[in-house]
Amino acid sequence: MAKYVYLFQEGNKDMRELLGGKGANLAEMTNLGLPIPSGFTVTTEACQKYYRDHSELSKEMEEEILKNLHILEEKTGKIFGDAQNPLLVSVRSGSRASMPGMMDTVLNLGLNDEVVNKLIKTKEKERFIYDSYRRLIMMYANVVKGYPKEKFERFLDEYKTKTKKATDLDLNAEDWCQITADFKKIYKEITNEEFPMNPTVQLLEAIKAVFRSWNNERAIYYRKMNNIPEDWGTAVNVQEMVYGNLNEQSGTGVAFSRNPSTGENELYGEYLMNAQGEDVVAGVRTPQPISSLEQSMPNIYQEFKKIAKMLEEHYKDMQDMEFTIENGKLYILQTRNGKRTALSAIKIAVDLVKEGLITKEEALLRVEPNQINDLLHPTFKKESIENTPCIANGLAASPGAASGHIYFHAHDLIAASKKGEKAILVRLETSPEDIEGMHYAEGILTIRGGMTSHAAVVARGMGRTCICGCNDLLIDEAKKTLITKDGMILKEGDTISLDGSTGKVYKDILPTEEVNISGDFEMFMKWADEIRNLKIRANAETIQDAKMAMKYGAEGIGLCRTEHMFFAKERILPFRKMILSNTLEERKSSLKEILEFQEKDFEQLFLVTSPNPIVIRYLDPPLHEFLPKTTLEIQELAKEIHVTEEEITKRIADLKEINPMMGHRGCRLAITYPEIAQMQTIAIIKAAAKMIKQNVPLSPEIMIPLVGDEKEFSYVKAIIDTTAKEVMQKENIKIEYKVGTMIEVPRATILADEIAKSAEFFSFGTNDLTQMTYGFSRDDASKFLNSYYDKKIFLQDPFTRIDEKGVGKLMEIAIHQAHKVNKTLELGVCGEQGGEPNSIQFFQKIGIQYVSCSPYRVPIARLAAAQAAICEKKNK
Amino acid sequence: MAKYVYLFQEGNKDMRELLGGKGANLAEMTNLGLPIPSGFTVTTEACQKYYRDHSELSKEMEEEILKNLHILEEKTGKIFGDAQNPLLVSVRSGSRASMPGMMDTVLNLGLNDEVVNKLIKTKEKERFIYDSYRRLIMMYANVVKGYPKEKFERFLDEYKTKTKKATDLDLNAEDWCQITADFKKIYKEITNEEFPMNPTVQLLEAIKAVFRSWNNERAIYYRKMNNIPEDWGTAVNVQEMVYGNLNEQSGTGVAFSRNPSTGENELYGEYLMNAQGEDVVAGVRTPQPISSLEQSMPNIYQEFKKIAKMLEEHYKDMQDMEFTIENGKLYILQTRNGKRTALSAIKIAVDLVKEGLITKEEALLRVEPNQINDLLHPTFKKESIENTPCIANGLAASPGAASGHIYFHAHDLIAASKKGEKAILVRLETSPEDIEGMHYAEGILTIRGGMTSHAAVVARGMGRTCICGCNDLLIDEAKKTLITKDGMILKEGDTISLDGSTGKVYKDILPTEEVNISGDFEMFMKWADEIRNLKIRANAETIQDAKMAMKYGAEGIGLCRTEHMFFAKERILPFRKMILSNTLEERKSSLKEILEFQEKDFEQLFLVTSPNPIVIRYLDPPLHEFLPKTTLEIQELAKEIHVTEEEITKRIADLKEINPMMGHRGCRLAITYPEIAQMQTIAIIKAAAKMIKQNVPLSPEIMIPLVGDEKEFSYVKAIIDTTAKEVMQKENIKIEYKVGTMIEVPRATILADEIAKSAEFFSFGTNDLTQMTYGFSRDDASKFLNSYYDKKIFLQDPFTRIDEKGVGKLMEIAIHQAHKVNKTLELGVCGEQGGEPNSIQFFQKIGIQYVSCSPYRVPIARLAAAQAAICEKKNK
Repeated sequence: MAKYVYLFQEGNKDMRELLGGKGANLAEMTNLGLPIPSGFTVTTEACQKYYRDHSELSKEMEEEILKNLHILEEKTGKIFGDAQNPLLVSVRSGSRASMPGMMDTVLNLGLNDEVVNKLIKTKEKERFIYDSYRRLIMMYANVVKGYPKEKFERFLDEYKTKTKKATDLDLNAEDWCQITADFKKIYKEITNEEFPMNPTVQLLEAIKAVFRSWNNERAIYYRKMNNIPEDWGTAVNVQEMVYGNLNEQSGTGVAFSRNPSTGENELYGEYLMNAQGEDVVAGVRTPQPISSLEQSMPNIYQEFKKIAKMLEEHYKDMQDMEFTIENGKLYILQTRNGKRTALSAIKIAVDLVKEGLITKEEALLRVEPNQINDLLHPTFKKESIENTPCIANGLAASPGAASGHIYFHAHDLIAASKKGEKAILVRLETSPEDIEGMHYAEGILTIRGGMTSHAAVVARGMGRTCICGCNDLLIDEAKKTLITKDGMILKEGDTISLDGSTGKVYKDILPTEEVNISGDFEMFMKWADEIRNLKIRANAETIQDAKMAMKYGAEGIGLCRTEHMFFAKERILPFRKMILSNTLEERKSSLKEILEFQEKDFEQLFLVTSPNPIVIRYLDPPLHEFLPKTTLEIQELAKEIHVTEEEITKRIADLKEINPMMGHRGCRLAITYPEIAQMQTIAIIKAAAKMIKQNVPLSPEIMIPLVGDEKEFSYVKAIIDTTAKEVMQKENIKIEYKVGTMIEVPRATILADEIAKSAEFFSFGTNDLTQMTYGFSRDDASKFLNSYYDKKIFLQDPFTRIDEKGVGKLMEIAIHQAHKVNKTLELGVCGEQGGEPNSIQFFQKIGIQYVSCSPYRVPIARLAAAQAAICEKKNK
Repeated sequence: MAKYVYLFQEGNKDMRELLGGKGANLAEMTNLGLPIPSGFTVTTEACQKYYRDHSELSKEMEEEILKNLHILEEKTGKIFGDAQNPLLVSVRSGSRASMPGMMDTVLNLGLNDEVVNKLIKTKEKERFIYDSYRRLIMMYANVVKGYPKEKFERFLDEYKTKTKKATDLDLNAEDWCQITADFKKIYKEITNEEFPMNPTVQLLEAIKAVFRSWNNERAIYYRKMNNIPEDWGTAVNVQEMVYGNLNEQSGTGVAFSRNPSTGENELYGEYLMNAQGEDVVAGVRTPQPISSLEQSMPNIYQEFKKIAKMLEEHYKDMQDMEFTIENGKLYILQTRNGKRTALSAIKIAVDLVKEGLITKEEALLRVEPNQINDLLHPTFKKESIENTPCIANGLAASPGAASGHIYFHAHDLIAASKKGEKAILVRLETSPEDIEGMHYAEGILTIRGGMTSHAAVVARGMGRTCICGCNDLLIDEAKKTLITKDGMILKEGDTISLDGSTGKVYKDILPTEEVNISGDFEMFMKWADEIRNLKIRANAETIQDAKMAMKYGAEGIGLCRTEHMFFAKERILPFRKMILSNTLEERKSSLKEILEFQEKDFEQLFLVTSPNPIVIRYLDPPLHEFLPKTTLEIQELAKEIHVTEEEITKRIADLKEINPMMGHRGCRLAITYPEIAQMQTIAIIKAAAKMIKQNVPLSPEIMIPLVGDEKEFSYVKAIIDTTAKEVMQKENIKIEYKVGTMIEVPRATILADEIAKSAEFFSFGTNDLTQMTYGFSRDDASKFLNSYYDKKIFLQDPFTRIDEKGVGKLMEIAIHQAHKVNKTLELGVCGEQGGEPNSIQFFQKIGIQYVSCSPYRVPIARLAAAQAAICEKKNK
């Protein structure tokens, strides 16, 4: 028979799949002898069974829970539901992956009228007990029964108004007694039943409710964003209550063993005296920094510091811990590997290697490659920050430089962001409901809450810039205004800038600049480079991009889209003339003008990337993409090139395509207009000749796009080779160059053995290959892909991450076929998945030699490639 | 060393690859002892070598030709170039496949001033000799030197005007002597050199010219149309001249051993006395029917008849023969299997089986499946023909009922036809230059020429309706008018109708009706059905099409495109309402209206096809295809459904797709709007229930289109199964139905093993599969495919004939994968290639069980499937 319940002492940290992260770590800590309130974990398998059983707890499972509850009673010497010596418990979720705040919790279970009446022995505790009881009633109605808390909260507000008491702290025991009675009435009113006095019912219902919360909207959205599978389910932890809000000798806090923002090796966190844990995380009251605990409760501080160090050494990673002090005694409620900024992740990884706690390989596996992205985002220009007065100061909760229009509600922000606006979410405090809005935001600004508030934790996890607890500002969420100390009023849509590294808020959008790579980051990336065997190139065509790519460690250019060179104002004109030509002669004369630009471009690119290879893709998009769209543009063009508007309009109509993605593009252009390929070849070879004569070593690789048949390839290759030979003879020089093709049409994968006979390299264009293999275009698929995710038909976006079974299989077929005839064929990937870590792992596995991605993603790809190499070694 | 020249006695009929069709048959007939003028053949390999040698004859080849010329001299007792006893020869092309009139011929080689002067011994022959000489000069200038004949012809016309002589026959020996002298002057004028007096030069140059004519425009176009490979080349036949224009005891003719139009077993042909062969084929003079030869030259007639019978028995097929009578002696110049109409092809095949000459299998292989198409084309309605007076009578040269606008020049007709107009080509007589125009024409009408004229032969080969020698009509090609006996004037663009079975021409466009299948055709198709193992279904959704399909022998419907049922006026409205719905409720209410139509449709389809299967494809095209396109239509719709124009316009804009082929369509619609699939299921199951209750057996197969992932399939299948179960419960009936999918997305082929687990059938949608595998859309590919053909990158249209290596390979992968998990999976093809004979051969090979094609193509597919089965048996 399956075992669905584990006492904390029965588990350990390696059982997170079964016990969830929280449960596994509570077990581990229990066995380490740390002060952990006793409890047990109902497993994730129980949750899966619950869903299989049509949202019912089986009889056996109920019995197993109650059996373990009895063990807990014995251990604590308290009895659940007993009026004399009651055991009170919390019920908390805990899944395999951390999903902070996404699922539900019920506290104070075990209270009922009888227990409460007996407990009220001392006037001192009366107020606390009623407060706990009314919280249980409200939470139960909300979490178990599914009604919003509003009615309760409104009643509480009205009660305070009526009794003229400003805050909860002003309410005394009688007030709470009265409120509790009224909460029970409200409970009956909205649920149509009495609040359950049977603690066992309370417990079992609460466990089911937490199981259900696995599928609330927030949790689903969070999972989708973080690629967490739907079918994992959550474990549930049942644990004896300890109270940070018992008295002034009590408190609760959250702390990291190192600074999660910068990575500094220092205890970092905050606490609130006389408060429950929820109060710290929710950001309702601004808490004290942990350092001040050293003064107020030195013993507790030292004990906690020791535990933190011990846990860090035990887990070999920075820990994020929750603790509660109940009447002067410290309890640890949770530990986990702490979420951290990219900056911090790298510093901690490097420091842990230096401290001898982990190996370089382990360090490399510690950092999520995508997080590196955050490090590469621009910062505000120094001079502009120095010369701009800030309008407010808050806590530097998550670094970065974010500018945008302010929005006060997540839904407004999402709407604006979908229209392409850069937006900043401004809230009094954030709550899990804001999660989607935070995802769309450039940055987050909250007025309340500390460094470990919801906003701060989530923003750091997402890599969003965040400033918290900025109480310099007065917010009116209803009116959608923000008032500065100087009385300046900011309205929805106004622009501000947030410096997440300093906590400073500025008006308007400030100019930014590129970051420098140095220090720990540089060392970390060096380790990655030492270990990986996949080469990383970049997609770039401008000198600026090429330079950035090289700075970020690219080993050449894997995709230079020559057509991007034609869109600049002074170049589009001859290009358009070329398209509108009626004769070969006219076309050749326009191409001559273009040739000069191309030649110069290539000279510069060769210079920047020397001696690394550059893969130059020949003209790819359909010609109509270059023609004007509006009447005005047509009029202008007509004037400029002395052609009638009618002629241009006619030509535009001629070139119109029903499915441009599957139209006259790629090598099909070179086949109908060989003179274009000739021009591009002349430009490359002449530029290369010039550079070689200046002793600049280089390695051009000419890539023919959209090949689906060996004859297409050979036809264009013949043009290239003939033209190159002529230019080389004229220049009296020999230039080594390769000719290869992009594999992006399904047919090319099937006939790779034919194509590979004469090709020197393949570069998989996974964007188009994905589109054609699935038979949907990226532009149009958005109309139905959401339905696909909702209905769990697709678990991931096939354009973001390689579809291993389908598109990936075709790639494998292509490689297998190609290797039969050409063992030295160079194999690369130049689709956007070339910079996506999971895809990189796959590409490594199937024998790809390099990936090419956007310059910004080069460091991500370097790290992902290192991780892929480490995993491959492990699996051998 | 290769042998490039074969004397006729050295060859035989099986050497057509080497000697060409004409050469191989001349050799065969020589060895049969028939009266064949002596000669030799320069092989097709020589032609290929000529092209490889940059259009030069090698020294060795020249020597080999001259060596054989000497043997010919010995055989004939005549000497080439000798003034006393000159050998005169013809040089004619002859490729592996018959390409009538496409390549060049030079006659009378061996004549020069010296020979001619000596030959003119009798006044009687003088006229003939000059005429032959001037023809040689003109032909040589034209064929060898490449100048048009015009200048010569114009001179001849002017000479006749000047001398007031109406026709060539009025010119006497002195005239021809003078003309010959002038022709030599013209020759020098245009070629800038003297006409060559050296016969060896004449011969070798003529051979090269014939080699070159393999690549003239007409020949290239003909090869492309008939899928004849470029690299075959032509052989050249050098043969002693015999003269049908020597005197009144001479003549020339063309005859078939059976009637090529109807297949009747009767000698069928025509001849002209005192004429050269070219005169008959060119249709310049209207010849006599062969039967009249029986009276005028009974011995010759009997001799020819005997030879024709002998050749037919020898070749076991109907023969097309050319003969010449020189001064009372019969010579056979050519025999080949005769081109014939579909009607005739089938009758002859059936008759030959009856006569015991060939087996049923051989008979089935004798008919080109595509030809059957011609038999199925409609004929004019009896009553309309009976009630319409015809405006002219001509020869019924090629059967069929053709109506259209008249054009007098091929290029005008091609232009009109490309605009979508149905057109009739009207010419005094056609010549090889008209070949492309004839291809585009619905029918051909010539004023001159007989049953074996160029127009008649080519039209029959192409399956075009043709009326020849319609000299009731007066034509003015320059003015583009046609005048009837009654003085009615028809101008370019006016409409006429041609009945190719009666030779009658009507004014205006007459209504047509379907043909009946019976007699020989029925028996022939029965043989095909006995032998084939591939089932043939039809693509049909209307009752009319379904009925026609069943009449033509379809074994069910292989593709019922349900969306085609929505385009009718009264149905498009609720469909549009459905698309424009804002809520699920609105959508459901519109679907309810549609449901009623669908249900009735299916009832009728079940009735028509019972008990055969119907594969019903669920809604496939993107929704925007159903919405109005013009402002006017939008206004109307707005009024009809009480929605503002803006709303409709907005929705149209919302639904617009960049690449509709790769957009929101196929099963993607059923996933976003499950209610559509529900409605379609209800309609099918309810209709089926009703029919079964009426004892109509049926077999519905529900096809989910555009599946690329097993989960897509399962999701929609679940909707179908759930809905069907509900309806069946309500109707209290059990209905057997299958659920399968169309395989048309490359990913589906790769993941076929997953999809086949729950699918009951696969139907390959080769249209879309081809588009996505190649990555080009049919609509857009026309812009570059011509370049691909010109540059020999593609040898065939991949949409017409299956691409075996690419698309076909994916099909094989899919079948292999699917069979691993599902041995009973039904496999079909429902793309247009399902009716293409070569593709059918491939489908048979890879294990497809049925093909589905348009109703008209069903008989073609039946025959092609029989041929595929015969070939498979042979290859075993």
